[in-house]
Amino acid sequence: MQIVVLAGGIGGARFLAGVRAYARGAGAQVTAVVNVGDDIRLHGLRICPDLDSVMYHLGGAADPERGWGRAGETWAVKDELAAYGAEPTWFGLGDRDIATHLVRTTMLDAGYPLSAVTEALCARWQPGVRLLPATDDRMETHVVVDLDGERRAVHFQEWWVRYRGDLPTHRFVFVGAESAKPAAGVLKAIGSADAVLVAPSNPVVSIAPILAVPEIRDALVGGPAPVVGVAPIIGGRPVRGMADRCLAALDVPCTAEAVGGMYGARSGSGILDGWLVDDTDAGAEVPGVRVGSAPLWMTDEKATAEMARAALELM
Amino acid sequence: MQIVVLAGGIGGARFLAGVRAYARGAGAQVTAVVNVGDDIRLHGLRICPDLDSVMYHLGGAADPERGWGRAGETWAVKDELAAYGAEPTWFGLGDRDIATHLVRTTMLDAGYPLSAVTEALCARWQPGVRLLPATDDRMETHVVVDLDGERRAVHFQEWWVRYRGDLPTHRFVFVGAESAKPAAGVLKAIGSADAVLVAPSNPVVSIAPILAVPEIRDALVGGPAPVVGVAPIIGGRPVRGMADRCLAALDVPCTAEAVGGMYGARSGSGILDGWLVDDTDAGAEVPGVRVGSAPLWMTDEKATAEMARAALELM
Repeated sequence: MQIVVLAGGIGGARFLAGVRAYARGAGAQVTAVVNVGDDIRLHGLRICPDLDSVMYHLGGAADPERGWGRAGETWAVKDELAAYGAEPTWFGLGDRDIATHLVRTTMLDAGYPLSAVTEALCARWQPGVRLLPATDDRMETHVVVDLDGERRAVHFQEWWVRYRGDLPTHRFVFVGAESAKPAAGVLKAIGSADAVLVAPSNPVVSIAPILAVPEIRDALVGGPAPVVGVAPIIGGRPVRGMADRCLAALDVPCTAEAVGGMYGARSGSGILDGWLVDDTDAGAEVPGVRVGSAPLWMTDEKATAEMARAALELM
Repeated sequence: MQIVVLAGGIGGARFLAGVRAYARGAGAQVTAVVNVGDDIRLHGLRICPDLDSVMYHLGGAADPERGWGRAGETWAVKDELAAYGAEPTWFGLGDRDIATHLVRTTMLDAGYPLSAVTEALCARWQPGVRLLPATDDRMETHVVVDLDGERRAVHFQEWWVRYRGDLPTHRFVFVGAESAKPAAGVLKAIGSADAVLVAPSNPVVSIAPILAVPEIRDALVGGPAPVVGVAPIIGGRPVRGMADRCLAALDVPCTAEAVGGMYGARSGSGILDGWLVDDTDAGAEVPGVRVGSAPLWMTDEKATAEMARAALELM
């Protein structure tokens, strides 16, 4: 059995750990198609926060308390960059993490596509899941906000990390998405999948940028595999992160039902065949989509593996 | 009074600290023209060992025991790069040091010349001496050696750091020197200098690459300022480093007199008007050059300032 998972960073990583646990029991292979809209070049380094969150988490190297970056991280380079006055100073570049970015940037600058670089990095971490960036092309999520009395577009990281999303926010733009091609391996993975799962990641800034790559969306809509999403909202609140702020900018209510409706039915103009909500939200309805419920708190890998099982039962 | 000093890394840095101390007393300004032949790109980072040794040392930030790199240095990035299997692993890239390289590389990639980058970095360190790279162009010292049964050229850093100079060594090649132009400010500094001092740096791999830039050599030979060198050899042994190995490759005896002869008299085809040797080597003769002697051990800044004074008295 081949399972493809569309995923963002930290929430996606936790969900993938559960899918991996499920897949080990079921003899299935898992491919993750990971958001790159959060990617950014800082201090000359190409940083892929979502790919790294997934890679570190599945590789057992993530910081368990902070939720992002490496366990045992140190911050000498960051402190020194600040002492030089090198901007930006608001992004948390750890020393261990920087080694990853140096290897990645060196390979990218030598001409390797991000998908090949990711595979090379994963040779060390052995995540047990095949990690693919959504695209090897440049694609960045920018956010249209009011800032200093002007309407401006800032990079997603600036919006999220620097301003904590606390700016009047109008919309999200996936710069480069229209001309972006799926990364090597993505279309083949989706085309040969037995199931596609949408992780309970932020629908607006983690999943939407993946779907914004036209051929990925087309492959999901037109492909043979059923697509089942897992709700990132439980009882009207995001499981983690700031999906509520993002949904508000789009005038989408912060409910599991509304997010399911935003993804939409594959029989209509959407992508979903099934939609798994938390038991709290049982009774949610998404026209044209089979809706089921299960406990959706990812408290540990076992509970999360049960979520994967419940999602696959909606196929 | 304007003093220009040609200098390499660690020995050059110590000498410059003495020249700076002398200049403070004499109301003089000091410009250092620093070797860039040791420069190398590693892991995508532009590393300038000599410029950084001088900058850190004069800025009070150098490690006093190791002699190179930053005080209080940590090595998280280096360990991680090795864990990725990223080559080379033999070069000591410290975390604090890496911040310098990130700032430098970002500025270079944005189009700033190395001289402007160096000035920007020095805004933090306030070395009290104007630091100029010999050239803003790419120039690298390579070493022709016997390795694995073949005659090969390796980068100077590989020869020095990886192999500790312990290979059959035939010659040193300053790749790019012939077409390299002096960095912005170098010719003006030499042209308006009241004196040029050659630091007791390695004559073969620190000073010779500076002189290999044709317009720098021409400016020294044809300029108004007297040029006085300070011997890097005391009693037949290098003050530090491996000048002995380098001189052997050129069949030059490891003596203060022979190194003076290698630089040669400005009245002939060389660059020197004066040559200061240690009292141990008093009596050394270099045809056409005024030779003096003084204690040349750079035990502290005061002793080194006295060396500068003695060198300037040979003008």
